[in-house]
Amino acid sequence: MCRWIAYKGRAIPLERYVTEPVHSLVRQSIDAKEALGATQGDGFGLGWYATHPEPGLYREVRPAWSDENLKHLCRHIRAHLFFAHVRAATSTPTTRPNCHPFIHGRFMFMHNGSLGDWDLIRRKVEGLIPDAYYRSRIGTTDSEAAFLAILGAGAETDMAGALTRTVARIADMVRESGDHKAFRFTSALTDGETLYAVRYALPKEAANTLYFREDGGDVVIASEPLDAERSIWTAVPANHLLIVPKSGKPRLEPFLDETRAAAE
Amino acid sequence: MCRWIAYKGRAIPLERYVTEPVHSLVRQSIDAKEALGATQGDGFGLGWYATHPEPGLYREVRPAWSDENLKHLCRHIRAHLFFAHVRAATSTPTTRPNCHPFIHGRFMFMHNGSLGDWDLIRRKVEGLIPDAYYRSRIGTTDSEAAFLAILGAGAETDMAGALTRTVARIADMVRESGDHKAFRFTSALTDGETLYAVRYALPKEAANTLYFREDGGDVVIASEPLDAERSIWTAVPANHLLIVPKSGKPRLEPFLDETRAAAE
Amino acid sequence: MCRWIAYKGRAIPLERYVTEPVHSLVRQSIDAKEALGATQGDGFGLGWYATHPEPGLYREVRPAWSDENLKHLCRHIRAHLFFAHVRAATSTPTTRPNCHPFIHGRFMFMHNGSLGDWDLIRRKVEGLIPDAYYRSRIGTTDSEAAFLAILGAGAETDMAGALTRTVARIADMVRESGDHKAFRFTSALTDGETLYAVRYALPKEAANTLYFREDGGDVVIASEPLDAERSIWTAVPANHLLIVPKSGKPRLEPFLDETRAAAE
Amino acid sequence: MCRWIAYKGRAIPLERYVTEPVHSLVRQSIDAKEALGATQGDGFGLGWYATHPEPGLYREVRPAWSDENLKHLCRHIRAHLFFAHVRAATSTPTTRPNCHPFIHGRFMFMHNGSLGDWDLIRRKVEGLIPDAYYRSRIGTTDSEAAFLAILGAGAETDMAGALTRTVARIADMVRESGDHKAFRFTSALTDGETLYAVRYALPKEAANTLYFREDGGDVVIASEPLDAERSIWTAVPANHLLIVPKSGKPRLEPFLDETRAAAE
Repeated sequence: MCRWIAYKGRAIPLERYVTEPVHSLVRQSIDAKEALGATQGDGFGLGWYATHPEPGLYREVRPAWSDENLKHLCRHIRAHLFFAHVRAATSTPTTRPNCHPFIHGRFMFMHNGSLGDWDLIRRKVEGLIPDAYYRSRIGTTDSEAAFLAILGAGAETDMAGALTRTVARIADMVRESGDHKAFRFTSALTDGETLYAVRYALPKEAANTLYFREDGGDVVIASEPLDAERSIWTAVPANHLLIVPKSGKPRLEPFLDETRAAAE
Repeated sequence: MCRWIAYKGRAIPLERYVTEPVHSLVRQSIDAKEALGATQGDGFGLGWYATHPEPGLYREVRPAWSDENLKHLCRHIRAHLFFAHVRAATSTPTTRPNCHPFIHGRFMFMHNGSLGDWDLIRRKVEGLIPDAYYRSRIGTTDSEAAFLAILGAGAETDMAGALTRTVARIADMVRESGDHKAFRFTSALTDGETLYAVRYALPKEAANTLYFREDGGDVVIASEPLDAERSIWTAVPANHLLIVPKSGKPRLEPFLDETRAAAE
Repeated sequence: MCRWIAYKGRAIPLERYVTEPVHSLVRQSIDAKEALGATQGDGFGLGWYATHPEPGLYREVRPAWSDENLKHLCRHIRAHLFFAHVRAATSTPTTRPNCHPFIHGRFMFMHNGSLGDWDLIRRKVEGLIPDAYYRSRIGTTDSEAAFLAILGAGAETDMAGALTRTVARIADMVRESGDHKAFRFTSALTDGETLYAVRYALPKEAANTLYFREDGGDVVIASEPLDAERSIWTAVPANHLLIVPKSGKPRLEPFLDETRAAAE
Repeated sequence: MCRWIAYKGRAIPLERYVTEPVHSLVRQSIDAKEALGATQGDGFGLGWYATHPEPGLYREVRPAWSDENLKHLCRHIRAHLFFAHVRAATSTPTTRPNCHPFIHGRFMFMHNGSLGDWDLIRRKVEGLIPDAYYRSRIGTTDSEAAFLAILGAGAETDMAGALTRTVARIADMVRESGDHKAFRFTSALTDGETLYAVRYALPKEAANTLYFREDGGDVVIASEPLDAERSIWTAVPANHLLIVPKSGKPRLEPFLDETRAAAE
């Protein structure tokens, strides 16, 4: 189980949320409160949008809490949109290409959860990735495969549709595999302008936590609150999508057919 | 282009060939003589057979020349059969799972070369890997894919046959892909008892160098000679297989249909 | 705060205690029970005596729990005397030279604790190291400095005396520094034949835990018990030295003047 | 022997000089032309001034040529003053704290060369560092010790004077040590406003190369030219100091008493 945060708003130094808060993401890497295990020490990553349409990326296999570089980068890099992720590996090795976030062109993605029993559906999910994107598969995680499948499903022209269709297809694969492990998909996707955050699981009650808060147009989304004032954080309901548009207020929408998911 | 050595004989400390000779493998990592580039600094690996039927493995992303652990392990580990490899990455990331050798059960494999343009045939080669072995694919190299394909082709019962058939199939894939990059396959495969070393390429003249020497029943095979006395090393001819049986003398055999390869 | 184990007895694979037990050292790296923090993820190390008078050494900055190499080495290396250590850094960086154990010639040392406020006494402790040993200082920890000071105090001819005198001198330095942080020194020292394990602190009640068990001549010493059967483990009393001689039974002795320490 | 570049001028992305030129610093990490060895693969570092008076820092033990993070950071970070360094270790381990540049408060320093035989004068050079700065010594290189000695010699109020006095004192130490290894000190020092680059050696003829070029007020200083147009680069003469003031043209001055150095 991993921990992540996503930010969209005025340009700020990344440290504002990654390292400074009492219960910052880096603090969560060694002492998470709402994760299955307290430690997410299997690598981490930062991705940010600044002067280019494509995001910058820093990923490392060492734990976030002891990485001096991370502290410097969070202090010196400013961005209006960024992702940060600390990893607790499930079954794939601790390598940089297996760390989140993943990027491709303008797109960036990160994930907390797992696609059921990856061994059972890996080939099918990889089969969703068109050749043009498969050459970008440099790691072996289920998360990267899901990202490339979403891109292959038409994210260029319909990001939300590609996201929804791909998760629905993977959910079908998990069901058909006869797997009894949950499909957990608490994730964030952006093209550098619109930000989508999903809290989804099959079965629904297995959904990993997700929270957000809004402050004067700046939106922070996080696996668990970053500070003691839990009251200012809103929980994203299970199987919902939080949309943070290029401009305007964030809004919540149901994600996939809940009745159908509940009926499983 | 990488550099590697394989040893089979009396149990010796690994340092005898990995670190001690004038032109040892570790020396070759920073100053190879017969490689395209002098530096193979993109990780390295050691695999050895000692008290278990399965080999031990040490792989690391840092250059071999500066790894203090490597020096200690080579001094303190003794084995009657071992592989060592220093990597010059072609197009896949520098991660431990992308370093050679690769192991699976009793089997161990390493490779110097590339399967033509990997982007063109990656899916086809991965398609050769049966599900039972695909779950062991923890990296993204062409080499690991070839190894798992060889295991899937029946190495358990016919190692040489599985090796030959798989290389022949990959050669067909390279030809059919319309690729103009060479398929270079200078590699070593063992089950802990018999050792096969291949020097093969399509076209044949592109074959990466391979040498061996025998000394009282101990056989050393290497990308390039480990010492100044080049005269005691025998060059393996292109498109040949060197077989070092469980007991008895090593012997050379042609590998794949040379006429056919030459006719391309 | 760190966790460590030391073993002396019949030659066994390291996995017996490092990775296999329910509460093995590797398990303790992510879920220690008697440490201040549950996570010791700031690097680790193994040192072992096999065929040479000098120990072998493997140290790495990544957490022990995710290191595939560690698993292999523990399975394939056998030794009659070995140390293993998982680190929770106090104030020095996570680098290989700062990981334990430390070795020099035949000697090996590891430590759990800290020499009070290192910034206050660093120069004085480093001043204890004779020039001949100072060139071997490749890291910046208080632990490595203490080890080299012990060697410089005559460990070659009187290991126990050098150990005792050095700890006494450092205790004086801590007292004189006006420091209010405890001097914690739960450590192990060996020349490859005799093994000394110390549980010492100033003030005494600050001493980090230490346990041992004996089984048919094989002795295991550990920061905390490795299995559920706590009853078979004996706690080393604070400010005591456990001596495991080359042959014969281990014995406990008071370490430094307890009255004097208690009077502080 | 290492390679480095320093830049001061209009704010530019670091990639302009670190990764883009034909013979960029990253290219030099694997194929330097004017160094003793072609490979500087023992770690690297970046330091830059952007929105804070203190520089940002990114250091890593892997070779620069294969570090994906480096490529991203050079593309996305813009600075008006930055240092970049690729390391060929002489005798100290490959750790992040041993990589250049070094920073302290507003100050930043990097070095190519060595202080003669470090083992002979290490204690004396470390003795130049006042306690207030000694606690910042987190590595073991001669370069970091020289930097902290310069800071301790009053760089806050007289950077050039502190630099000159410290190098002169170290030169005396090297002479007195009876060492026959050269003292090579091709280095750069800045407080974020003025930039000093030194090409110095004892004996003078041992001085490592240094070049600079000016282009409309932007100054680039480098161990060796970054592109094919060598004619636009000016060689810094041995035992000279290049001063790039906060504003105004760079100027060359003799550094230390050349007559005296030549007389040795």
